Amino acid sequence: MSDTRALLAGLREGAVPSADALSAFAAGLADGSVSDAQAGAFAMAVCQRGLGEAGRVALTQAMTASGKVLRWDLSGPVLDKHSTGGLGDCVSLVLAPALAACGAFVPMISGRGLGHTGGTLDKLEAVPGVSVTLDEARFRAVVDEAGCAIVSASPDIAPADKRLYAVRDVTGTVESLDLITASILSKKLAAGLDGLVLDVKTGSGAFMKTEGEARALAEALVETAKAAGCPTTALITDMSQPLAPAMGNALEVAEAVAVLRGDRAGLLLEVSVALGGALLASAGLEADAKAGAQRIRDAISSGAAAERFARMLAAQGGPLGFVEAPVRYLPEAPVIHEVTAQQEGYVTAFAGQSLGLATVALGAGRKVESDSVNPAVGFSDIVPLGTKVAKGQPLMRIHAAREAQAAEAETAVRAAITHTPLAPEPRPLVLAEVR
Amino acid sequence: MSDTRALLAGLREGAVPSADALSAFAAGLADGSVSDAQAGAFAMAVCQRGLGEAGRVALTQAMTASGKVLRWDLSGPVLDKHSTGGLGDCVSLVLAPALAACGAFVPMISGRGLGHTGGTLDKLEAVPGVSVTLDEARFRAVVDEAGCAIVSASPDIAPADKRLYAVRDVTGTVESLDLITASILSKKLAAGLDGLVLDVKTGSGAFMKTEGEARALAEALVETAKAAGCPTTALITDMSQPLAPAMGNALEVAEAVAVLRGDRAGLLLEVSVALGGALLASAGLEADAKAGAQRIRDAISSGAAAERFARMLAAQGGPLGFVEAPVRYLPEAPVIHEVTAQQEGYVTAFAGQSLGLATVALGAGRKVESDSVNPAVGFSDIVPLGTKVAKGQPLMRIHAAREAQAAEAETAVRAAITHTPLAPEPRPLVLAEVR
Repeated sequence: MSDTRALLAGLREGAVPSADALSAFAAGLADGSVSDAQAGAFAMAVCQRGLGEAGRVALTQAMTASGKVLRWDLSGPVLDKHSTGGLGDCVSLVLAPALAACGAFVPMISGRGLGHTGGTLDKLEAVPGVSVTLDEARFRAVVDEAGCAIVSASPDIAPADKRLYAVRDVTGTVESLDLITASILSKKLAAGLDGLVLDVKTGSGAFMKTEGEARALAEALVETAKAAGCPTTALITDMSQPLAPAMGNALEVAEAVAVLRGDRAGLLLEVSVALGGALLASAGLEADAKAGAQRIRDAISSGAAAERFARMLAAQGGPLGFVEAPVRYLPEAPVIHEVTAQQEGYVTAFAGQSLGLATVALGAGRKVESDSVNPAVGFSDIVPLGTKVAKGQPLMRIHAAREAQAAEAETAVRAAITHTPLAPEPRPLVLAEVR
Repeated sequence: MSDTRALLAGLREGAVPSADALSAFAAGLADGSVSDAQAGAFAMAVCQRGLGEAGRVALTQAMTASGKVLRWDLSGPVLDKHSTGGLGDCVSLVLAPALAACGAFVPMISGRGLGHTGGTLDKLEAVPGVSVTLDEARFRAVVDEAGCAIVSASPDIAPADKRLYAVRDVTGTVESLDLITASILSKKLAAGLDGLVLDVKTGSGAFMKTEGEARALAEALVETAKAAGCPTTALITDMSQPLAPAMGNALEVAEAVAVLRGDRAGLLLEVSVALGGALLASAGLEADAKAGAQRIRDAISSGAAAERFARMLAAQGGPLGFVEAPVRYLPEAPVIHEVTAQQEGYVTAFAGQSLGLATVALGAGRKVESDSVNPAVGFSDIVPLGTKVAKGQPLMRIHAAREAQAAEAETAVRAAITHTPLAPEPRPLVLAEVR
């Protein structure tokens, strides 16, 4: 019996595979000697039996080691953040340069949007000229020069994850704590990090709908990353409304720049500060998360973070002077349509997934991986939860390519926003810290 | 979410899929719209969760209906047998013509050897000129003319099983009662049977090592086949020694002919009689299994069964006069080497799997599906369990292509035969009947 067959037969019976067996399996995924059928059977067996903590760590390390693992020799710690995905979540665009301004280096390997949430790479590409597909030498040069870079994964980063992810997508095996953990962390650990902060989101706009699910994932991620040698903290944060008051690629870039320029308070700034504070503390750059948070605020208010962002953009091919005047560069949709309240009341809930899918329908995201995105479209000026809105006052603006799409989006938006006479309970932004 | 993804996600959670969902899945296996990854995940999920009796029946029927289902219009019932596989098991060569001689029609779709047991098709092909790949018209003509035919499955018989079987082989998911049942029965039910008898073997030379495992499989097979509308009986039979005193393709054909000619008593005859008797009874051709068994004996002793075998061989391209003088036609190995006892004692046990693998090493079987087989090689004159053998007396004869292979086989044979001073307990041949 081949090693893979033996591994699968063992998993079928509930045995936890050895680290060596998982290494061979991950290598086989990477070099193609493990078949799709075997990958599908593996994913299903792990979903059903689980790997336990030791097995999860071993799988994560095996998948990390299935490709290139970057090593750095820089004058500060190499840090990164990962979010499980939410609406208006352009934290990476704020936090990467803010961390760089605090003396860290952030070689951020990021993803594209799929499903109802957007992707950092799509957002960054809304800036004309910016390239996210850098070769390793250029990636290293940008990190060295700007302190941060945001790029797509090259094919040699965690290739085992690329294959297993594609298989999970078609086999109903996406929702396994073990497989999600290994997938997220293998890509991050391959970047050669000294510290990581995770934003595990819960609520209507998140993949984890309940705080319990989010906590279980956060604990699995933190335990596994630490066991693999990477100091890691997770914050469980609320995703019951868009983080920036905008959704869509160029529209979120504009919001991130506004935060970096000190022009915008709100959830996006607060989540960035909380995540950055926790990360600086766990990386030893500050004594605790509170001091870390202040350091992030200072990096923003001093303009240092914005300066890093400008340097990164320029180094990745973007225009000089972008941060000073983003509206001069960002694409604008031909149709801008205001959605106004039909009666007086409070915004009490967003159906997050519906809202996200409405931006996908506008062209801001992808239904399938091969779709291209329209950087200009989406929503802006979204009123926060708890806002009292009078009849006829705006709830948000729709940015669309065509009138008909704007009309469709309005229907979707109206169905997705709950607007009632009673004010909602305020809810905390950071629900818990796991470390 | 696609239907297949939904089916898999449900299975992952332990839901039993609907008959419609399984039909769509089997059709997707057949037409290629279900991917290998999905087939692998399905096999693993079924191994771990099980389908239950209703699900197993639905899967079997769905896989049967994934291709062509034969319909017959003949003057007698359409019957068949299936064995789970053992050593020296050439029962099909005896039973198909014997049943034909009793007024039944036997359109036997059979398989090739893989692993430690042989395959009926390989055995039949040891007869020069015989073809087992008949088109449907020729298959029907042979069944009509001889009352029986033994052929390979055309690609349109249970195509879903062909794909799932290949996937199970590489994913460590062969050993699932649900999947084994659906695989065996889908091919048999596609032949359009009025009755079926199953030889479920247990012991050192069988896939089911314990009687408990064999009984569970027999019950699953019988319940499922009956629920699918095919009257079915199973006998659980002993496989702690070769059934014919020979292993290897031409050598087993010679033994089958000897039984059909009434020249040989022994296990091969007795198992054929027991299976045929049970089948004639369940098909209503005889009042009970005892009367059925006598009818099979009569068909053999009258020469009617041998005459049917001769007709079938001739209709499938074999030589006229084969049954009268098989040694004139069957290939003979260049090296025939006698293994003799090194001390006096009783033959008390055969390590069946080792013995089978030793014939594979000689070239009688396949390590991988693409191997070709040597029809001449194998073992003959194997002494039965319980035989007292004096020092220097023969235990069996090895038929090999080369001296070196014969020497290797002798080492394997000596290790596989237990020869002790104490006589073993005699054991019954038919352990139980399940119907």
